[in-house]
Amino acid sequence: MTATDKIVYADAFAAGLPAPKPKGGSPSRYNFGVGHNDRETIPVDGLSAAAVSVLAREGQSLAVYVLGGSPLGYAPLREMVADKLRRRRGLDVTSDEILITSGSMQGIDLVNELLLQRGDVVIVEQFSYVAVFARLRRRGVDIVAAPLDEGGIDTGRLGQILSELAAQGRRPKYIFTIPTIQNPTGTIMGLERRRQLIALAREHHVPIFEDECYADLLWGEDAPPSLYAMAPDLVIQIGSFSKTLSPALRLGYLVAPWQAMSQILALKTDGGTGALDQMVAAEFLKEHFDSHVARLSGMLREKLDVMMEAIDREFGSAVTVLRPDGGMYAWLRFPDGVDLRALTQPGNEAGVAFNVGCDWAVDPDEGQNHIRLCFGYPTKEEIKEGIEVLARICFETLGIPERSGNRANRNPV
Amino acid sequence: MTATDKIVYADAFAAGLPAPKPKGGSPSRYNFGVGHNDRETIPVDGLSAAAVSVLAREGQSLAVYVLGGSPLGYAPLREMVADKLRRRRGLDVTSDEILITSGSMQGIDLVNELLLQRGDVVIVEQFSYVAVFARLRRRGVDIVAAPLDEGGIDTGRLGQILSELAAQGRRPKYIFTIPTIQNPTGTIMGLERRRQLIALAREHHVPIFEDECYADLLWGEDAPPSLYAMAPDLVIQIGSFSKTLSPALRLGYLVAPWQAMSQILALKTDGGTGALDQMVAAEFLKEHFDSHVARLSGMLREKLDVMMEAIDREFGSAVTVLRPDGGMYAWLRFPDGVDLRALTQPGNEAGVAFNVGCDWAVDPDEGQNHIRLCFGYPTKEEIKEGIEVLARICFETLGIPERSGNRANRNPV
Repeated sequence: MTATDKIVYADAFAAGLPAPKPKGGSPSRYNFGVGHNDRETIPVDGLSAAAVSVLAREGQSLAVYVLGGSPLGYAPLREMVADKLRRRRGLDVTSDEILITSGSMQGIDLVNELLLQRGDVVIVEQFSYVAVFARLRRRGVDIVAAPLDEGGIDTGRLGQILSELAAQGRRPKYIFTIPTIQNPTGTIMGLERRRQLIALAREHHVPIFEDECYADLLWGEDAPPSLYAMAPDLVIQIGSFSKTLSPALRLGYLVAPWQAMSQILALKTDGGTGALDQMVAAEFLKEHFDSHVARLSGMLREKLDVMMEAIDREFGSAVTVLRPDGGMYAWLRFPDGVDLRALTQPGNEAGVAFNVGCDWAVDPDEGQNHIRLCFGYPTKEEIKEGIEVLARICFETLGIPERSGNRANRNPV
Repeated sequence: MTATDKIVYADAFAAGLPAPKPKGGSPSRYNFGVGHNDRETIPVDGLSAAAVSVLAREGQSLAVYVLGGSPLGYAPLREMVADKLRRRRGLDVTSDEILITSGSMQGIDLVNELLLQRGDVVIVEQFSYVAVFARLRRRGVDIVAAPLDEGGIDTGRLGQILSELAAQGRRPKYIFTIPTIQNPTGTIMGLERRRQLIALAREHHVPIFEDECYADLLWGEDAPPSLYAMAPDLVIQIGSFSKTLSPALRLGYLVAPWQAMSQILALKTDGGTGALDQMVAAEFLKEHFDSHVARLSGMLREKLDVMMEAIDREFGSAVTVLRPDGGMYAWLRFPDGVDLRALTQPGNEAGVAFNVGCDWAVDPDEGQNHIRLCFGYPTKEEIKEGIEVLARICFETLGIPERSGNRANRNPV
């Protein structure tokens, strides 16, 4: 500790803060842990050309807050978002229903600020996005799980849960769902399920908070329309460019009717979202969104194939893994009772980063026999090798997978 | 109201929200109201060249969150900030004490989250930055005013206030100060006052929260070192590129020792600050910060001269205005008892935007006879004309300035 590391005001810190953050470690050799994107697919030349053209045309607008425009964000980017939502996700929206946010996480913060108070109850899918859980817990909100199956939320059981809560006089503040390529499970909620979910939400007068961050990264046939498209009076939607373009750019969006939006805008007190991120992304994407996303999805699908083969080869029947319909995550289920937290330390030592499901679950114990693996960032070679290393430490630590079948013959440990 | 403007969940909104935001109006012809910057001085070509070079070299790093680097922000930008703080403001810091924030407002939010709980007391300069007041009020914090004079905080009276609070058993969570080109008053706190302030803060065990957003926009001799340079164990500093480069780029910074920083980092849950804003600014500023700021300050000083002449010509002895030592605001004081809120509506109608002091004051009534005028954004011609229009509506509404002396002769209303 140097002299200036000692502060005299540590005793003035507020109560209940999260744990201090350690100084960052070195990156893992096999990084399946965070939803980073494919490096080779970043459209570097396209972004560079976009920067030059948009700065030449509009550079002086950098002199004013929010580019001198609407607090909703840079108009060409909102128009681009409205256009893609109309074409790809069935929404009937104008750019005035779109708020550009600094990542979808800011959208989550804004909706939470709009709706939540300490002691409120919300419904979240049994497995969901880690940042949602962390935020809700910090706000002192009760989280009730909506059970999932391969078709998304089990609406039969959700109906029972809503009725039980109603009997207790508790009306949830929202139902948070990732219907289209769920994070972490990778499933797509079917059209009939979507209709049932909306009917339940309407019956119980509970808004739906829809996260569509992965909805543009589909392969195969189209998904059903977004929930917002089906019930704009009942749904707030968030989306992101983290998965379709770059997570380092902090660009997400929130879709809501003006009655909600005007109140959300009053809560967005950040002086606007970053100008160059918005301007350069809009300039590039207004011409190239579809072609870029098609190229990226193709690359992600190739990486998924490599990962699924490696998982099958290395883990065999020891794990259950559903092939996702898009996106960048594989969700592995180990036998009940296995606690994969035991792998974290050996993983760190072996240079393999991954997410044990506990932090991605309403009930951490339900997540402990799951692992989420992101296949967006590592190269195909790193995927193959990394899954081998993961299987090795898994066997060494937990005795899974058993040394049998293909794996033991080909790759003895 | 269209069909989708009706939402069914408005009754689920949390209690105590701020008023909804209206749809944006059209920009004012004479805009003295917000701290926008000079359009002509935006280094458009330099930023464009910087974007091309940094993307060619590091574009693939956009594939990962926080550019694959430290949660403190883009390392070259932090190094540039540490270098300028060492050279220009006397700080003995490394880049590991610098956190890049999404504007200095995010720095304010993080420090508030670190230190404040409902019912806490903080000390803020009698007149200060509007966004600070809005945030503190929303957090339910008691604000006690530190009286100001032309030399900054009146430390004699501050000492009394701290003693009175101590006698009540109330220890303020921080003293917020803008010592170097105060917003809105434009003054610089002298060295002796800085020493007295630090001694008081140390005696009463109260951290100092120092805002240096304007400290690079000095004309004339250097200011005394920053408070952080004089007492890093007692001070948290924030700064910004909004005034020195662009407010549309959302780039500020926070300076704190690691013991505080590690806790602040745990509260910065935004997935990083915008990548292109950081990368392009760093690439440009690491070579051009001093020359750009010198050019910008020269332009701002010319605009101030035009404004001061116009105020003198149009208002004469009806107002008191101290010539600021830098920055981009003039702070006009009207006679006691005048309530300038009466000018807002006529100002809107006449196309003149300005800030009545009420929102810039701990006690709104103390601000009502003050106006803050930003001279950064309007052209010199707009400054001349706009001050004429302001004087006219001021006379028509309040009878001030009296039609006497130069003004009535040259510009009868």
